[in-house]
Amino acid sequence: MKNRSLVAINDLSRDEIFRVLDLAEEFEKNPIQRIMEGKVVATLFFEPSTRTRLSFESAVNKLGGRVIGFSEASTSSVSKGETLKDTILTVANYSDLIVMRHPVEGSARYASEVSPVPIVNAGDGANQHPTQTLLDLYSIRKTQGKLDNLKIVMVGDLKYGRTVHSLLMAMSQFNASFTFISPAELRMPLEYKMYLDELGLNYEEHTDLAENIKDADIVYMTRVQRERFSDPMEYEKVKNAYILKNYMLEGTKPNMRVLHPLPRVNEINTDVDESPMAYYFTQALNGVYTRMAIMALILGLKK
Amino acid sequence: MKNRSLVAINDLSRDEIFRVLDLAEEFEKNPIQRIMEGKVVATLFFEPSTRTRLSFESAVNKLGGRVIGFSEASTSSVSKGETLKDTILTVANYSDLIVMRHPVEGSARYASEVSPVPIVNAGDGANQHPTQTLLDLYSIRKTQGKLDNLKIVMVGDLKYGRTVHSLLMAMSQFNASFTFISPAELRMPLEYKMYLDELGLNYEEHTDLAENIKDADIVYMTRVQRERFSDPMEYEKVKNAYILKNYMLEGTKPNMRVLHPLPRVNEINTDVDESPMAYYFTQALNGVYTRMAIMALILGLKK
Amino acid sequence: MKNRSLVAINDLSRDEIFRVLDLAEEFEKNPIQRIMEGKVVATLFFEPSTRTRLSFESAVNKLGGRVIGFSEASTSSVSKGETLKDTILTVANYSDLIVMRHPVEGSARYASEVSPVPIVNAGDGANQHPTQTLLDLYSIRKTQGKLDNLKIVMVGDLKYGRTVHSLLMAMSQFNASFTFISPAELRMPLEYKMYLDELGLNYEEHTDLAENIKDADIVYMTRVQRERFSDPMEYEKVKNAYILKNYMLEGTKPNMRVLHPLPRVNEINTDVDESPMAYYFTQALNGVYTRMAIMALILGLKK
Repeated sequence: MKNRSLVAINDLSRDEIFRVLDLAEEFEKNPIQRIMEGKVVATLFFEPSTRTRLSFESAVNKLGGRVIGFSEASTSSVSKGETLKDTILTVANYSDLIVMRHPVEGSARYASEVSPVPIVNAGDGANQHPTQTLLDLYSIRKTQGKLDNLKIVMVGDLKYGRTVHSLLMAMSQFNASFTFISPAELRMPLEYKMYLDELGLNYEEHTDLAENIKDADIVYMTRVQRERFSDPMEYEKVKNAYILKNYMLEGTKPNMRVLHPLPRVNEINTDVDESPMAYYFTQALNGVYTRMAIMALILGLKK
Repeated sequence: MKNRSLVAINDLSRDEIFRVLDLAEEFEKNPIQRIMEGKVVATLFFEPSTRTRLSFESAVNKLGGRVIGFSEASTSSVSKGETLKDTILTVANYSDLIVMRHPVEGSARYASEVSPVPIVNAGDGANQHPTQTLLDLYSIRKTQGKLDNLKIVMVGDLKYGRTVHSLLMAMSQFNASFTFISPAELRMPLEYKMYLDELGLNYEEHTDLAENIKDADIVYMTRVQRERFSDPMEYEKVKNAYILKNYMLEGTKPNMRVLHPLPRVNEINTDVDESPMAYYFTQALNGVYTRMAIMALILGLKK
Repeated sequence: MKNRSLVAINDLSRDEIFRVLDLAEEFEKNPIQRIMEGKVVATLFFEPSTRTRLSFESAVNKLGGRVIGFSEASTSSVSKGETLKDTILTVANYSDLIVMRHPVEGSARYASEVSPVPIVNAGDGANQHPTQTLLDLYSIRKTQGKLDNLKIVMVGDLKYGRTVHSLLMAMSQFNASFTFISPAELRMPLEYKMYLDELGLNYEEHTDLAENIKDADIVYMTRVQRERFSDPMEYEKVKNAYILKNYMLEGTKPNMRVLHPLPRVNEINTDVDESPMAYYFTQALNGVYTRMAIMALILGLKK
């Protein structure tokens, strides 16, 4: 992965994914290593995402590297009419690696094509957010002891949810079976179901939450947003139907863990937080180790 | 103090206060110590406060630690509807200590109750700002050679002023006597005067500034803000009556020093700045040493 | 230069300019030196300028120093009515050197007069931006092998352009000859031409771009902004006349290089980017080395 950009989860082979996860595990055991000393990472957040930005910045700092950057486009040269290409070519002079969040789909790929330093995509619109997928995979492997032959239940907005699409693509390499639970308006798009069909992987679709998580190894929650509905009445009908509550965890498998990309609004009731099955905050911590691993590999500091 | 949050000045015993001041003195003598190497401090400023933020960030950096964070809520996940609890639980994964400024009173206490890492309150609304009080105590002890038996004159907005309330509470442990100088509308609240009565400590109340600072050891200035007055005519009448001017310093005690939490607008005339009694900018410098001490003790890097 | 502020390019003697350029060259050869360890630099950007800020922050970080600061005035104490003097006196307590960008002309000089720590002016309104001039000089010397006896062509907004005025002043010490190419409304001001007359230096003025760059050693491009024109029709007439295109580079001298302070909007066609004569992005990189040199000299870390 040395000197390569990471734009989409598909940029990584199965072996490379394992290398990232193994190295993240090494960093979890020993997070304070000063291997990035002398390196400067630019975090260019053309739209705010505090969680992702702080996670990357924590990873860089713990490894001894330095961070420069901006947290929203309004304080950047973008407002002076500069093209993305010029911004990237300039910032590449100031840094060894660029972490970029941008509202436009495809912007990260474009940036990686013009940049002389590697780009790590920290989210380009509804398109890709590969480090999120890698931390999801890390969390799944860590809690299940393996990635193969798992039952993944995805809940909420399966139509627009960037994270569930990427996770589906990644887990499809590991003989997963899937359950999709969503309101009718926000179903998993046909293209992803066709993809699973091609691979011969099983999936089910449901609209009821409580009844369909009993055999899950992983329940991956996402938020159902009002603005996704063309008809507000439709939203009102379903808005409370996709909230995970503690009582629903009864009768689920003991190894089951609840994941969420965060931030959560109300789609996981706070009474779930105390459950040993709640894993979403530890999942965020795993993001630091995963991002350490990604940056260390790209910068050639680990092999 | 190891692993404990610092939310209010009353969280600290008299001995702990002395420990902070002694250690701050040690840092003043030798400010460059890399004892925070490998530590990450998150500065979460849900409302802007440049001075306080930069003071903390300078302290962390001088001790070799690293800073991540945000300087206003608009660029944080708060705008996505996340609860304070979730923000804290997430950021705790990225950092060893959280410095937090928040407009809501009680928010810092709440954060300290849910957070797995220590919280340092950098101001929660009109409530508490304990590191300000500690730097005030440090400044008083440094300029007076002691904390006991001093005459403290507090001037300006004594009704809403968070800093004077906390300083009163702290200095009441050291047999201080007080003079309160304020417009009638902004008098020291009854509860604080009753508290002093209970302890048998002396205090006077006045509305005139120039005449009542002659026997002061410390004159603590605060700003009289227009928006505190229900009647704008009242403000117009008093707005110039609480401005400290250089000529007023004549006849005061030679050891007297003028303090101010800053930022100042016009309540200390700039002709005071050249006086050896002006101490407010050095007071700001003392904030760096005091915050170094607080963080070093909480992180267990000093005992 | 130790402990001195850098407000205007004229603050530096010819020898001092050479010292900065020589040291910048040393840093270009060996950019990772931890000589600023233990030093804190405050970057106070009262108006946003991502490029300049990130360039300084990269320079500080590569030399092992630390950065605190703000990237726009809205998140600073300025909004609370604090004077610039008070802000500087306070921040000077938190840092060893202040890099300051401010919209008001003369503000950097004023700051340098009240500050106990050195100020580096990173642009004060339309007035001065000396580190830009130094990186321009570095880029000229690096590409031409010398500073003496060069032909400098300046294009675009020569009336309001801060960078071209400073560069003219600096290059006038090296027996340069100048060509000014601009619309009639944005001509080089009379005072600068009188200054060249006094020194006996040659200059020409033209309105046509393509025909007047053939004998140039350096073509320095700047942006023609709509808001500079009193009559919008005037702008419409000239807006496309000052765009450098690749075909215009034919027949120019082989050593010629195109510079631009960036950000560019459209005044250099992107088909120029691939030309070996395009130097503006490398010019930005040179800014990191030049700023390393300036700060190292001011902090007394290099002689």
